[in-house]
Amino acid sequence: MQIAIPVFDEMTALDAVGPYEVLSRVPGATVTWVGLSEEPARADRGLRIVPDALLEDVPAPDVLVFGGGFGTRALARNERVLDWVRRAHESTQWTASVCTGSIVLGAAGLLDGMNATTHWAVYDELAATGAVPIAERIVEHDKIMIGAGVSAGIDMALLLVARMTHENVARAIQLGIEYDPQPPFDSGTPVKAGPDLVALVQAHGLD
Amino acid sequence: MQIAIPVFDEMTALDAVGPYEVLSRVPGATVTWVGLSEEPARADRGLRIVPDALLEDVPAPDVLVFGGGFGTRALARNERVLDWVRRAHESTQWTASVCTGSIVLGAAGLLDGMNATTHWAVYDELAATGAVPIAERIVEHDKIMIGAGVSAGIDMALLLVARMTHENVARAIQLGIEYDPQPPFDSGTPVKAGPDLVALVQAHGLD
Repeated sequence: MQIAIPVFDEMTALDAVGPYEVLSRVPGATVTWVGLSEEPARADRGLRIVPDALLEDVPAPDVLVFGGGFGTRALARNERVLDWVRRAHESTQWTASVCTGSIVLGAAGLLDGMNATTHWAVYDELAATGAVPIAERIVEHDKIMIGAGVSAGIDMALLLVARMTHENVARAIQLGIEYDPQPPFDSGTPVKAGPDLVALVQAHGLD
Repeated sequence: MQIAIPVFDEMTALDAVGPYEVLSRVPGATVTWVGLSEEPARADRGLRIVPDALLEDVPAPDVLVFGGGFGTRALARNERVLDWVRRAHESTQWTASVCTGSIVLGAAGLLDGMNATTHWAVYDELAATGAVPIAERIVEHDKIMIGAGVSAGIDMALLLVARMTHENVARAIQLGIEYDPQPPFDSGTPVKAGPDLVALVQAHGLD
């Protein structure tokens, strides 16, 4: 089973590394990091990831997981990327996104008129692609699975593993990565955090 | 504020990328990925990360976060790495680890006789360094903060941000990364998962 995860400049690393850490543990699965060039991509906070292959080297992955980050704005206007997504989606078993990765899937025409989600700060940008943004952690439609912002990719990938294989495989992987979340605070959504923190995040570009 | 996160072969990427995604959002902070060479390090499931600098280029970081992975077994016997940890720790404001990163801190002599934690599967290896393993998500001693396995680095880093700056900064970053965890299953610890899943994880090397 071949799992393709795009790497690109201004990606948010955790969007992609969360699902990678989960999906790469599926017995028989291989994650391939696919890039627009052979050069390392620079994530939005500086991490540099080396691509394993070009997009075109992996035209028909079994699973596609598109992460987000500010760089998705450029990708959503890049016909090379959108063509690759459309063609890959024709034969994937699963097409998934995390955070603003859904804006790329939407721009490729995969989410037209469908409920979908993205990072809470950019529902309007997702809506502009023709999708209908909703505030859910994970949204599923047949073989499409869409996760919310950044850290949601871990939750989404565990559900994806359960759908792809068996619930016990997902549960074993959850144990393997000791995913028993105990956040010290409870401010992971705009509703829980309140308007002052929302303003702080937006003023300082912490999203 | 300079935050050093080591990259090394056979690291577990999420151990390090979780804290990176949190800590790099602290206003005024810069994360530097420090390597044993200038070559990309290959994580245990294939992800390749480019180091920003050599260990010796960052002798006195304000914050040190050592992630884990199978590669820590070699690092815990590598005097170059242990010397770097000891010297950095002399002047850090915070010295932290995730997962088996604590085995490196322990091997450097930082955890002697202290309660500490690591991935649930290797408490015996941590004990061999002189630390006293306990099953906690986060363990704190003065300027040392130790997180449990893999995904625990996100929780630990949020607490670290609160200690380093202010609780509201940590809460804003939690909102920024939309960290409102909703795991689809509840098997993130050996007690919650039960012995059959523990055996499955160990048989298939999913830890």
